[in-house]
Amino acid sequence: MRCLGSLVGDIAGDVLSPAGLDRLRAVDPHRLPRVEGSPRIGPCVGAVSKIIGVGLNYHDHARVAGVRPPGRPVFFFKPPSSLCGPYDAVVRPKGSTHLDWEVELAVVISTTTRYVEPEAAAERIAGFCILNDITERKWIETSGQMLDGKSADTFSPLGPWLVTPDEIQDPQNLTLELSVNGVRRQHGNTADMVFGVAELISRLSHIMTLDPGDIITTGTPAGVGMRMTPPIYLQPGDCMTLRISGLGEQRQTVVSAGEPA
Amino acid sequence: MRCLGSLVGDIAGDVLSPAGLDRLRAVDPHRLPRVEGSPRIGPCVGAVSKIIGVGLNYHDHARVAGVRPPGRPVFFFKPPSSLCGPYDAVVRPKGSTHLDWEVELAVVISTTTRYVEPEAAAERIAGFCILNDITERKWIETSGQMLDGKSADTFSPLGPWLVTPDEIQDPQNLTLELSVNGVRRQHGNTADMVFGVAELISRLSHIMTLDPGDIITTGTPAGVGMRMTPPIYLQPGDCMTLRISGLGEQRQTVVSAGEPA
Repeated sequence: MRCLGSLVGDIAGDVLSPAGLDRLRAVDPHRLPRVEGSPRIGPCVGAVSKIIGVGLNYHDHARVAGVRPPGRPVFFFKPPSSLCGPYDAVVRPKGSTHLDWEVELAVVISTTTRYVEPEAAAERIAGFCILNDITERKWIETSGQMLDGKSADTFSPLGPWLVTPDEIQDPQNLTLELSVNGVRRQHGNTADMVFGVAELISRLSHIMTLDPGDIITTGTPAGVGMRMTPPIYLQPGDCMTLRISGLGEQRQTVVSAGEPA
Repeated sequence: MRCLGSLVGDIAGDVLSPAGLDRLRAVDPHRLPRVEGSPRIGPCVGAVSKIIGVGLNYHDHARVAGVRPPGRPVFFFKPPSSLCGPYDAVVRPKGSTHLDWEVELAVVISTTTRYVEPEAAAERIAGFCILNDITERKWIETSGQMLDGKSADTFSPLGPWLVTPDEIQDPQNLTLELSVNGVRRQHGNTADMVFGVAELISRLSHIMTLDPGDIITTGTPAGVGMRMTPPIYLQPGDCMTLRISGLGEQRQTVVSAGEPA
């Protein structure tokens, strides 16, 4: 592992633009200093101002949920304060009883984007990464609102790598996997998305301006805990492992609020 | 008008803490340089990471909508990119047909806040200001999601003043007013809130960490355009004027996307 600290303050803002990424691409990684020891790895993007999730965006997930795929994307926000590193502990908040996992392909925006058509959307992608869209199911059910169950601190582990689009042959053909305590629970492919990455970027850009570092997390395939028979929810000590083709691996242990992380 | 630029970079982060505000309070405003000319006035808080809205939080609004007041707060996010200054133009996005107004009391968080009880919530308030929670009604109806209709750029005019709590005798007894083209459309009092400021802060702090500069916009009284008979929606050229006791006045003109602002 090498350190970019001498070249950029953070992977954020202008660093995510095509010119900024070209500058990093031109650097010989072997000339960068090695990272010594085992420091904590933070989220792979900094200065995030928006995280936008998409509900029921996989055909197989909608099928298991017993509903038709939505006719238009179901968008919701997660707050930047929910971000954490890919190996950080996931903290089960006080009062939480129905904590669930969701492996997702996250897309990071490169440049200010408004009113783009799907055909031009790919140019606005700085890179791809894994996001675990941790969810408190009961809090959504009780409130009827996504905010209540999608927003707690550590509910958006992000990373480990931000992989630029030139390294990904086809973002709509990536395998996603999530295991809990070594048992595989989710296994899907981004080919099964109801609305693909380009369509999501385009539609969001017709609602609002997307800024560099904004994250679109594109929904999860079947296999969430809520849909198991009987349902299975995350307990303190549980360990999640997430993988997406070409994007590396995440791993989080669940702890209770109040316990040391 | 005086300029704080020699003392602080922005009204954000630590400047909003009790110690930061005490430092500003100790300054004699007459020793600060006058602001020359008529510069654009931006939002009264910087580095905002979360804006949280509350649906149907006034009894009179719920009554006019023909629904019972919700049994718990209906929270949703607005993105930081929706913020603008109190006198900036409100841009009607492409395709928008049902643009509506909402005068609201906004509360700005002073220090990192998690798991506070209502009794201790007032200590976490840096100040109060006006927010116009501009809304595209049709986009919410069509999508079933708040995000679609609450998030466009310029949908959250904020300010002009951030007024510290010592200047506000009782935040639950403030008059709110909104006029469109000189006709008064909203006229309410924060005493009519279903969930008061302290309760909202406490409940949100049990969902997630609130950070300095985070904004809670506490819902709107009766009198929105959607509930007029027949409904009235904002058109380019319309001028909104908003007032809350002690918090000054906002004024925005509506323009179409593509027109010069």
